[in-house]
Amino acid sequence: MTGAARNTRVLLAERPLNRRVRESDFKIETAAVPEPREGEVLLKTLWLSLDPYMRGRMSPARSYAKPVEIGEVMTGETVSEVVVSRSPALEPGDVVLARAGWQEYAALPAAEAERIDPQGMPLSYFLGVLGMPGQTAYCALLGVGQPKPGETVLISAASGAVGQVAGQIAKLRGCRVIGTAGAADKVAYVKDVLGFDHCIDYKGKDAEALGAELAALAPKGIDIYFDNVGGAVHDAAMANLALHGRVIIVGAIAIYDRLETPDTGIRWNRQLLVKRARMEGFLVWDWRHQTQEFRRDVSQWLREGKIRYKQDVAEGIAAAPRAFIGMLAGENRGKQLVRVAAQAG
Amino acid sequence: MTGAARNTRVLLAERPLNRRVRESDFKIETAAVPEPREGEVLLKTLWLSLDPYMRGRMSPARSYAKPVEIGEVMTGETVSEVVVSRSPALEPGDVVLARAGWQEYAALPAAEAERIDPQGMPLSYFLGVLGMPGQTAYCALLGVGQPKPGETVLISAASGAVGQVAGQIAKLRGCRVIGTAGAADKVAYVKDVLGFDHCIDYKGKDAEALGAELAALAPKGIDIYFDNVGGAVHDAAMANLALHGRVIIVGAIAIYDRLETPDTGIRWNRQLLVKRARMEGFLVWDWRHQTQEFRRDVSQWLREGKIRYKQDVAEGIAAAPRAFIGMLAGENRGKQLVRVAAQAG
Repeated sequence: MTGAARNTRVLLAERPLNRRVRESDFKIETAAVPEPREGEVLLKTLWLSLDPYMRGRMSPARSYAKPVEIGEVMTGETVSEVVVSRSPALEPGDVVLARAGWQEYAALPAAEAERIDPQGMPLSYFLGVLGMPGQTAYCALLGVGQPKPGETVLISAASGAVGQVAGQIAKLRGCRVIGTAGAADKVAYVKDVLGFDHCIDYKGKDAEALGAELAALAPKGIDIYFDNVGGAVHDAAMANLALHGRVIIVGAIAIYDRLETPDTGIRWNRQLLVKRARMEGFLVWDWRHQTQEFRRDVSQWLREGKIRYKQDVAEGIAAAPRAFIGMLAGENRGKQLVRVAAQAG
Repeated sequence: MTGAARNTRVLLAERPLNRRVRESDFKIETAAVPEPREGEVLLKTLWLSLDPYMRGRMSPARSYAKPVEIGEVMTGETVSEVVVSRSPALEPGDVVLARAGWQEYAALPAAEAERIDPQGMPLSYFLGVLGMPGQTAYCALLGVGQPKPGETVLISAASGAVGQVAGQIAKLRGCRVIGTAGAADKVAYVKDVLGFDHCIDYKGKDAEALGAELAALAPKGIDIYFDNVGGAVHDAAMANLALHGRVIIVGAIAIYDRLETPDTGIRWNRQLLVKRARMEGFLVWDWRHQTQEFRRDVSQWLREGKIRYKQDVAEGIAAAPRAFIGMLAGENRGKQLVRVAAQAG
């Protein structure tokens, strides 16, 4: 198998410190396909997921996981196909969810790959609506946010991988849902296709203007703010928090170009006190016990047409850096993926 | 009864906007003793409670209660004695908990006064360890903080009305407890009398120095931060938060001299995410359903000598402004009270 094949992979070449990511921060190289050891499988990447959290892994700043080292393959979830197995747990042809990173092939312990039974769903969905972003939406909204019918929910980055799902679940739970997005077509998609009640185009508006817009749309305040972005939208939401509001900190893409310096601005402690509100950080790793329940519910909603999901696909592993940079700038339309190879079957 | 008696009372004369409170912000005047109407009682104030939240009521800034108006009697909880009753619910000689404000007499609906059965406890305790500050400590620590044995709890303003109780309850729950206080004798009291494991003197230290001190005392991080102060101690605590830490925003006395401008500084959203931590505002009004349980538990701990409580008493209603200003500056030693009159009985 490994005869003529070569492994094209994307390494971290330079850390973007307090600036935007550039293509030169990555190095694309072609290496030999690795040999799996006893207990390992050789995986061929079919789909690579690009997610905002990867910006954090390029930074030396303290986070929940250690940074990617210079010269290492960029980290990332993949849907991969087993091409060689040295483990009884998996066989060639099996399709798995793995953390194979930004490369065409990877050798990993079989125990770190989870076989997927797609049940008619597109394989790429297991990196999105049925994967980590979908579970983030499901567990953060339902588990942390605990929405009640009639409550007002604000979702930032509403057309993104997580926001799309969070807002549609909030609608299914009987909430009034407001989104924010940064382009006219995204706003239209959020309202017309995803069925949010409102969507605010945040581009070019400061926290005050956004706050006024929110206040008009939600005069009784925001009960749940699902925060994917931080920054000005966060401030606008905090200023409009309802009594006993809940703020779920899921991401902070608005500050990812200055991750290495402290985020300064208005501290909303007194608002939390006055509104007896709660602000809580969310990481999907803490919710593994809900993975089965999440997949069951969301698969059903997808089959019933109650949840729609948009994907944005870049072609080939070499396209990953540019697609990632575009995603951080909001150029993607829906969940960003890289199609690395077609399934052999 | 109302014949010769006069009612000395303290009115709000001026709002302290973005500055310290001054004695000239208050006006002391003597008025006629009010006549209770049908359904009301005439109350004679025995004890007046002085609490940091009253600084908020002097401000026009948005809060959980409306501000005191210029020319109005300052608001406040009292232990009072019924001198005239025009309600079947109370009789002369009854001792009640009421919101009679900074004055010697008040006429209030009987329904707004709660008869106290002291059961051997000092009456003043019903404004402190057995009253609103004690219940704040009890419900915020146990209900919001949910301490587990072995966890590390940080309590700011540790020798104050709320902090004393919160720290001792945390010790009773098997936690390691660190306090902060702003004078050598307070630090000694917190460690030697209240039995905290450590107490940091925060005076003259910035967030970085405090953070380093905390890191040395709590190398595994702070599991619960009971925040009475905001400011630099808040920053030091946030920088040292443990995984799944809980931050209870109870007060913000460090920023009370600049209540009318937004509190700016480091925003800890990303730390909340990285640590999957929670920050929550607390107001005792939301916990009335636990009042009986709180009084039963804390009374028992007091009787068993498991909780100690220190009070700082000013004499006479005219001393209230100076005592209040002193308390905001940290000059009090324990829960600040004004003894307005002795009990008739």
